[in-house]
Parts: sequence; structure tokens; C-alpha cells
Amino acid sequence: MKLSILKNELNEAIQNVSKAISSRTTIPILSGIKVDVTFQGVTLTASDTDISIQTFIPVEDDRQTIVQVERPGSVVLPAKFFVEIIKKLPSQDIEIEVKDHFQTFLRSGTTDIQMVGLDPEEFPVLPSIEENQVITVNGDLLRTMIKQTAFAISSNETTPILTGVLWNLSEGNLKFVSTDRHRLASRTADIQADPAVRFTNVVISGKTLNELSKIIPDQNTMVDIVVADNQVLFKIDRVLFYSRILDGTYPDTSKIIPQNYKTELILDTKKLIDAIDRAYLLSREDKTNIVRLQTKEDGSIEISSSSSELGRVTEQLDVKEFKGDPLRIAFNSKYMLDVLKVVECENIFIGFTGAMSPIIIKPTEHVSSLHLILPYRTTN
Amino acid sequence: MKLSILKNELNEAIQNVSKAISSRTTIPILSGIKVDVTFQGVTLTASDTDISIQTFIPVEDDRQTIVQVERPGSVVLPAKFFVEIIKKLPSQDIEIEVKDHFQTFLRSGTTDIQMVGLDPEEFPVLPSIEENQVITVNGDLLRTMIKQTAFAISSNETTPILTGVLWNLSEGNLKFVSTDRHRLASRTADIQADPAVRFTNVVISGKTLNELSKIIPDQNTMVDIVVADNQVLFKIDRVLFYSRILDGTYPDTSKIIPQNYKTELILDTKKLIDAIDRAYLLSREDKTNIVRLQTKEDGSIEISSSSSELGRVTEQLDVKEFKGDPLRIAFNSKYMLDVLKVVECENIFIGFTGAMSPIIIKPTEHVSSLHLILPYRTTN
Repeated sequence: MKLSILKNELNEAIQNVSKAISSRTTIPILSGIKVDVTFQGVTLTASDTDISIQTFIPVEDDRQTIVQVERPGSVVLPAKFFVEIIKKLPSQDIEIEVKDHFQTFLRSGTTDIQMVGLDPEEFPVLPSIEENQVITVNGDLLRTMIKQTAFAISSNETTPILTGVLWNLSEGNLKFVSTDRHRLASRTADIQADPAVRFTNVVISGKTLNELSKIIPDQNTMVDIVVADNQVLFKIDRVLFYSRILDGTYPDTSKIIPQNYKTELILDTKKLIDAIDRAYLLSREDKTNIVRLQTKEDGSIEISSSSSELGRVTEQLDVKEFKGDPLRIAFNSKYMLDVLKVVECENIFIGFTGAMSPIIIKPTEHVSSLHLILPYRTTN
Repeated sequence: MKLSILKNELNEAIQNVSKAISSRTTIPILSGIKVDVTFQGVTLTASDTDISIQTFIPVEDDRQTIVQVERPGSVVLPAKFFVEIIKKLPSQDIEIEVKDHFQTFLRSGTTDIQMVGLDPEEFPVLPSIEENQVITVNGDLLRTMIKQTAFAISSNETTPILTGVLWNLSEGNLKFVSTDRHRLASRTADIQADPAVRFTNVVISGKTLNELSKIIPDQNTMVDIVVADNQVLFKIDRVLFYSRILDGTYPDTSKIIPQNYKTELILDTKKLIDAIDRAYLLSREDKTNIVRLQTKEDGSIEISSSSSELGRVTEQLDVKEFKGDPLRIAFNSKYMLDVLKVVECENIFIGFTGAMSPIIIKPTEHVSSLHLILPYRTTN
């Protein structure tokens, strides 16, 4: 293998695939990035077995020569060192040559680097995926759907299925659901898909989705998503992102979403965030995060928290709309802030179903997201 | 105590004094900020016994009313919560009132806060300092002198004196020295001082000096420094920063600085940093940080590092001036980078006194800073 390549293009490709490298891998070959060179271009692959990322650098792009290949070949290079050294090389031109025993020589300007390469035959083969079920989602929408749901996954590894986000697709409507048993997040969107394409119980690790988010470019990129039996493949420009589908059946959460409310409020989202944030500051010091909300006779609400050591925060907040019974309820303010910070709407609807029953949070502008948190049992 | 005060001014003052709050204090009163209110203004004080910071907010500044005092008084408020809640208050106006048992009430917009205050009589009294020895140093210069020396202090608490920076003043020349036994940093500057003012063996904690650096404003502020028997007081605008002087006698380091060199090099500082940085990347993976430097027959130098697991980095570097014998030496690349990143000069002089003897690093433009690192004993 022998080639020359432009530093910026190689660096960008390495940064993308390096997100699949686990720092705790016990399998030496997985701490490397596989480099495959053909006369068409350079393919980089990294994998931690849960996620695999592959990206392609063509020899030419917009008539600019990026790669000059003298001799095709493959090698696996130590990822951490490779990622860091490439961005610090002194010249835009990098020559790479693999010699005997996968010894790899890089030259850039007056810098010579020799890397201990590994045998590419030992690198795991990427899953082959049948492209029967393909949907296309706008990258910005996909990033928003992940942001609005992935935070509510469970961090408890004893129920692995809840560490994922449930994906369902039916009649062109894509739905994400996540829950950690104390709260639930859901988001739907109508997308481009053949009406024949439908799936249920596709559960993808929340951590994986957050990594995926970082790779989706800010521009209006379209992401093709291939859903197979135990793998999902995301195609983003020249990047292929493979994720395992979690084993198991996701619990049915549809029944816990109440349809009727005892009390309904519409509030200014920004003002509510600020008020709860101040109450949270105090409750956090007590490590409980408990904040209380109660309706007042004058039609406003009061948000408060207290700590025997520090004191008390009391917030008065105007209500834009109020329906139903007076209310006194306590909840985890961190959970409420998590929701309010991702809903992206000016006004927010909060529906209460009783002091010990679910609290529902929805934007007033549309019905595509719904969040639920359970109240706290408190003595007063 | 009852007053109203502008949020931004109170917030800035709190941020300054909060740098003296230790998160690990076992003395409850020291986890608070003392607030003293008179008709002249508000004084805030915080202390961890090693450092004490006091700042004053006048009732009026540039004809703008900052504080309106209704009733003077004092209270100690819980620092961490106080620091965070003030900057998040909804209105620019904050009313503060202390009632029975130091219960403190804050109001800003629609936010009401009650804080559990403590008795200000329990708060430690600031040291009284005789202002016999006063020097004045430009804030930018002081920050640079700290930056060029404090990184080389020892982190080993078994020799507490080496965790400080030694200050000496003689004939208007201020000198900072620090060493951790493997390296030494020194910096001198001529300053405004009465020729009668002189001191030796004033040792100030390196950590304290780094905290002080953060408080010195970027503008051309002059800092008055009062040196007393066991305390130093820094006066920066309206901030008083008190630091304890470390006990003990600082070792005499003058004899370890060589006067003659076997090999002398002058190099481009930026190119040298980049070359060593790449070699460091590899040596860091081996946790040794060992980098080798050797002169070549063509008058250039080679910088290299190697790791049996990862490979080898070799850098060729042009020399601007070369004097003396050929050289082959190994050193801690992290130590070398620490120096090169703070020297602030285009070209750098490096003097070698033998494979096992000190390496001296000095800017070529002036003689006010001198850094020394000891080479590594290596087998080849």
C-alpha cells in the first residue's frame, strides 16, 4: 500500500470514524482504524462491535485531487495516536506507505512517522445488510428527534432494553419513545417512506444515537436509514454508520399516557425554565431535586423549593391559561428542566392528572412531542 | 441590615471573592461569604485561611447609584448557593434584608429567596498588615511572571516549601523562582519600588498565585503588593487579596545554574514546539514522555521518540545557530513544552552542559527569564 493524501480530508474522515472507537476495548484490533486503499479512494473503518463507522475519501472531489494511489492495500493503524498525530502534521501533503509486517511509514514535511500496523484480515467484517426497508429523514429533524428523546433513557444496565430509544414506523409516521420508568419522552414525525415500509420494536442504544447526532452535518443533509433484522444502517453523505438493534421487547407504554386532565396550565416556556432553574439550584444542594408547584387563588402559580440547611426559593409565575382544579404537586426539577430545554416552543402545556399520577408536558404549537414525568410522593 | 443593590455589580464582586472558597472546608463558617453593609457601601469577604479575598462595592460609582442602604449590618451567607442564585435572578434590582437569627430575605422581580445566614462574629478576622514594604507591579507583568514560573512548582506536599514560588526583591529587581527538583523556572523584572524596600525568602503558594492571576483584570491595572512578616496583600482596584507566606527556608538554587555550555542552539520557538509536540504525542502513550534530541552532521537537529507498541516519530529541524560539540540527549518532553509555551519569544536559546547535566532554556531577545530541566538517563 502506497499513497499520498491531503491532510484536511484525511483528518475529517478520521474524526468521523473515531467516534466508534471505545477507549476501554479489550480486543487489540478494535483499538485500530482500518485503512483500505484502492484506485477509487480510501475507506476508513472503526468499530466497537456495537457501533461501526465507515467513511470513504474519493481520489478526486470537485476536480480537486485528494488521493494519489501508487499501490492499493490495507492496514489497521493504532486509532488514538493516528487521530491525534494527523491533525498536527506540518504539511498539507501526507505520504503513507505500508512495508513488511504492516510497518507503516508516514511522511509530512520534515516529519517521519513509523507506526506499528496490524493485519487487516483480523478486523471484523461489517454486517451485510439487506436494503429492503429504507427511509429518508432530514438530518436536522433526526437530530431534534434524538435530542427530544435520548435524554430520558435509563442508565441502569440491568434492563438493557430501556437504555435504548424505541423506533416505530407505520404509515409514514416515525415515532421515538424512551423511558427510565420515572419519565417518558416521545416524538413523532411524518417522513418520506414507501407506505409498505413499516417496523415495530426497533430499539437503538441512546448513547449510539447521541454519537450519531454528532456526525450529522448542520446543513440540510438527508439521511438514508436502512432497517434490517438486527442492525440499522445510517447513510450520511460518505459516512456509513452501523448500529446494533438491542435485543428484547420494549414495554408497552401506551397505556400510561392519560387522556384526561384534572388541571391544565399553559405557561411561557422561557419564564418557567428560569423559575424552575432557580428552585432547582437550591433543591440540588439537598440532592433531592424536589420542587413544588401550586396554583394560587389569584390565578398565578407558585414554584418553590426548600432546604433546611440553606433556606427557601419561592417563585410567582403568571399563567396564560388555567383549566380545572386547584393543584399542589411535587416533582423532580431536573427531569422537568430536561424536558423544557428540548421542547423548542414558546408556550408549553402541562396537564396534571392528580397528585400521584403522571404529569404531561406538550408544546402548544404542535402535537408531535409528548413528555411525561411522575410526581414525587411528599409528606406535605 | 436592609439594602437594595444592582445585580451585575453584586455578581461581579461575588465572583471575585468566591475564588477564596474551598469546596472541602470542614469549618462551616468558611463555606460562607461575609456581607458587611455600611452607608458607604457593601464589603464582601471570603477566606479559606490560606487565601482571603475582600472586595468593596461603593454606594455610587460614576454617578450611578449601585447600593441603597436602609439599615447597615452584617451576615454570612452560604457561598455556593449565593454565587449561583445571584447571577440567575430575574431582575437587575435585588433587595436584601436580614431579620432575626440572621434569616436573610432576598427579592428580585417575582423571586423570593430566604437564606439561612450565619453569625458574622464567627467569621475569621482578616490579618492586619503593616504597610512598611509596598511595591507596585503592572498587572500584565505580574500575570506573565506567574505564568512563567508557577507551572514548575512541586505538587508533592511532603516538601511544602517547594509548592510555592520564591520571591526576592533587591535594588528594585523582583525575582520569582520555582523548582520541583527536576526543573527550575525563574523570571526577573525591574519594578517601581523604594530602593530601601527589599525582601528575601518570601514564598507564596503556586496555586494561590494562579488564583490571583484570574482576578487581575486585562486592562493595564497596577497592583500594589504589601509584604509583611507572614502575609502578602495584593491590592487590585477594589479587591484585597491576602495570601499566607509559606513557612520554611527555600533551598538555594543559584549554584545549580551552569554558566558554561558544551553545546548551544538557537531555534525557531514555534517550529520547536510543533516538533516536540508530535514526538510527545507518541511518548505520552508510553507514559514516559521521553524525547531524544541529537545534532546531525548537516547542522540540523533530529527530535525523536519511540514506543515499542506504537512506532516512532522522527523530526528534522533547522538550527538558526549552532555552537560547540555534537549532542545526543533525552529529556521529558512535557517539561520542555511547559517552558516553550510560556516563554513568549520568537527564537529560543538552549544550552546543554552534558548528557546528564542541566539543560538551560532562555529567550534570545532578553535575559529576564531562565528555565532549566534535567535530562533523562537513558540506555541508548
